[in-house]
Amino acid sequence: MTNNNNYCVIMGGGIGSRFWPYSRKNLPKQFLDFFGTGRSLIQQTFDRYKKIIPVENIFVTTNEAYKELVKEQLPELNDSQILLEPTRRNTAPAIAWASYHIKNLNPEANIIVAPSDHLIMKEDEFREAILKGLDFVAHSPQLLMLGIKPNRPETGYGYIQLNEEQQGDFYKVRAFIEKPELEFAKVFVESDEFYWNSGIFLWNVQTILAAFRELMPEIYYKLGDGEENYASCPNISIDYGIMEKAGNVFVQLCDFGWADLGTWGAMYDVAPKDANGNVAVNGNSLMYDCRNNIVVIPEGKLAVIQDLEGYLVALRDNVLLICKKDDEAAIRKFVNDAQVKLGDKFV
Amino acid sequence: MTNNNNYCVIMGGGIGSRFWPYSRKNLPKQFLDFFGTGRSLIQQTFDRYKKIIPVENIFVTTNEAYKELVKEQLPELNDSQILLEPTRRNTAPAIAWASYHIKNLNPEANIIVAPSDHLIMKEDEFREAILKGLDFVAHSPQLLMLGIKPNRPETGYGYIQLNEEQQGDFYKVRAFIEKPELEFAKVFVESDEFYWNSGIFLWNVQTILAAFRELMPEIYYKLGDGEENYASCPNISIDYGIMEKAGNVFVQLCDFGWADLGTWGAMYDVAPKDANGNVAVNGNSLMYDCRNNIVVIPEGKLAVIQDLEGYLVALRDNVLLICKKDDEAAIRKFVNDAQVKLGDKFV
Repeated sequence: MTNNNNYCVIMGGGIGSRFWPYSRKNLPKQFLDFFGTGRSLIQQTFDRYKKIIPVENIFVTTNEAYKELVKEQLPELNDSQILLEPTRRNTAPAIAWASYHIKNLNPEANIIVAPSDHLIMKEDEFREAILKGLDFVAHSPQLLMLGIKPNRPETGYGYIQLNEEQQGDFYKVRAFIEKPELEFAKVFVESDEFYWNSGIFLWNVQTILAAFRELMPEIYYKLGDGEENYASCPNISIDYGIMEKAGNVFVQLCDFGWADLGTWGAMYDVAPKDANGNVAVNGNSLMYDCRNNIVVIPEGKLAVIQDLEGYLVALRDNVLLICKKDDEAAIRKFVNDAQVKLGDKFV
Repeated sequence: MTNNNNYCVIMGGGIGSRFWPYSRKNLPKQFLDFFGTGRSLIQQTFDRYKKIIPVENIFVTTNEAYKELVKEQLPELNDSQILLEPTRRNTAPAIAWASYHIKNLNPEANIIVAPSDHLIMKEDEFREAILKGLDFVAHSPQLLMLGIKPNRPETGYGYIQLNEEQQGDFYKVRAFIEKPELEFAKVFVESDEFYWNSGIFLWNVQTILAAFRELMPEIYYKLGDGEENYASCPNISIDYGIMEKAGNVFVQLCDFGWADLGTWGAMYDVAPKDANGNVAVNGNSLMYDCRNNIVVIPEGKLAVIQDLEGYLVALRDNVLLICKKDDEAAIRKFVNDAQVKLGDKFV
């Protein structure tokens, strides 16, 4: 059932500092097995795609710092499938570069570009959606995004507004909305016109390179000449550089149990809770007079917690973090302070 | 300067569950080096007495479970100096039993009985007080307690009220007051008539055995016949069984920087604090919007804590405890729950 023209690029270069101290500089979120299932997020992503795409057509973009982690966690990949970004840039240069790479292997390639750190619960629906999307972009020169039917007024996700124009189940995109205020998110969920932006893209390699030529010619021509120009590419995301500007962006409506656990708060929202709204991940917990906390400690350890509400308690290696679980900005400050005051050993 | 009639009994059999998870069933408080000084509390106690008492006259009472810990931490003791209580009983049987043991070695012995888990800051003043007390009990058939001049209305300590009757610097005891309410403690501190009960006793071996014969004849006769009767002795403390009832109890007024860190709250009270009243012991801490907490984590670890007030945060081995620092009773419940629900591995 696999099609040899189908390719996948898993983006595995992120830092994920918002999950400190669970994620660390040398062990970002995508390499963690958050729920103790036995497979890290990037492994789960790979597992999903290898049921759809020939393994030799799966590529992982990352950077030198995480090369060994990728090799260790994904031993089925050979070295040529690990695309090491010469410099840390944003997604637009990384995707253009991977696109050129794949075009040289197969100029008819249909490519899925996917984050490495998202959760997907309904595997059959996911596979069906991906195959349908690949078929769409194989036959139509469109840039396709997977949109997820929202089930709650999430303020941590970006939204895609649909246009009325339609090709079968695929809708043209009218607008992109960054993380909205709650009042807007509530309207979005009600309206049937807004979908979550999953960050999963599908397109034919010719279509995406044509879009780069038109909208980001600097990147198009620089990387067309080879990767030595990578460092001089602008630091721009694919969303901002291409998707928000191109006239041929479509969204496919999907519902496959998707979650981008971008923050501790987001993880709390989706995780199973006890009667008092507490989430305990991995190790043992005893909680007394506690409400709405998320406690993440290693297997084999015990946390006893009294009289906390709305906190994150995370213990990993040499760091214990106790903070308000909804104060995302604070965690960046903590990581930065730890770095400045105490050096590399805790970040 | 040492007197071969002088003996010391260090009581080293306590469990110390109030300091869980820092203390554990197999590592009670007296064996911990709380402040990272390099010597545990029982080692510090031994170090203090060996400057006053011949090492061969120092005994440690403990029980089978802690025998190896005592040998390991106090290698200067030979096995005959470790008195293993046949059964866990309270201080009255333990002291009677040790008294018989020492009387068999030296019927003129003057004995100091001392807790193994207290802090003493002023070593010179301490030595001077002990020598003075030993001289007193060598020449006078009294039961002597060391009373500590209170510096604050501590509600976690017992108090001794002085009688007017006086022999030099030694006052007869009028009454014992268990841990008082704060309003009473405040009056006590003001009055000059109340001293903290340090739990350190001095007496001649004949005097204490005479007191047992008079006030606790059951123990006196049972243990006079040998240790095989130990298990049938009543579970009674020396304070309740002897000191509160005897007519010849004196208190020596002392001031040598004494503290019984019986609880986390007590440790908090005496420890140096930052500008926001936080105490950090051992490892690194970064605190944000935190007041009046005590944070105890191992060396080499970092705790980042936001927005807590009045909490204990203690991490040791496989247990993390976060609870109100003044809720002493709760810690016993936590230990018990951990035992009942999860077995021995966390207690």
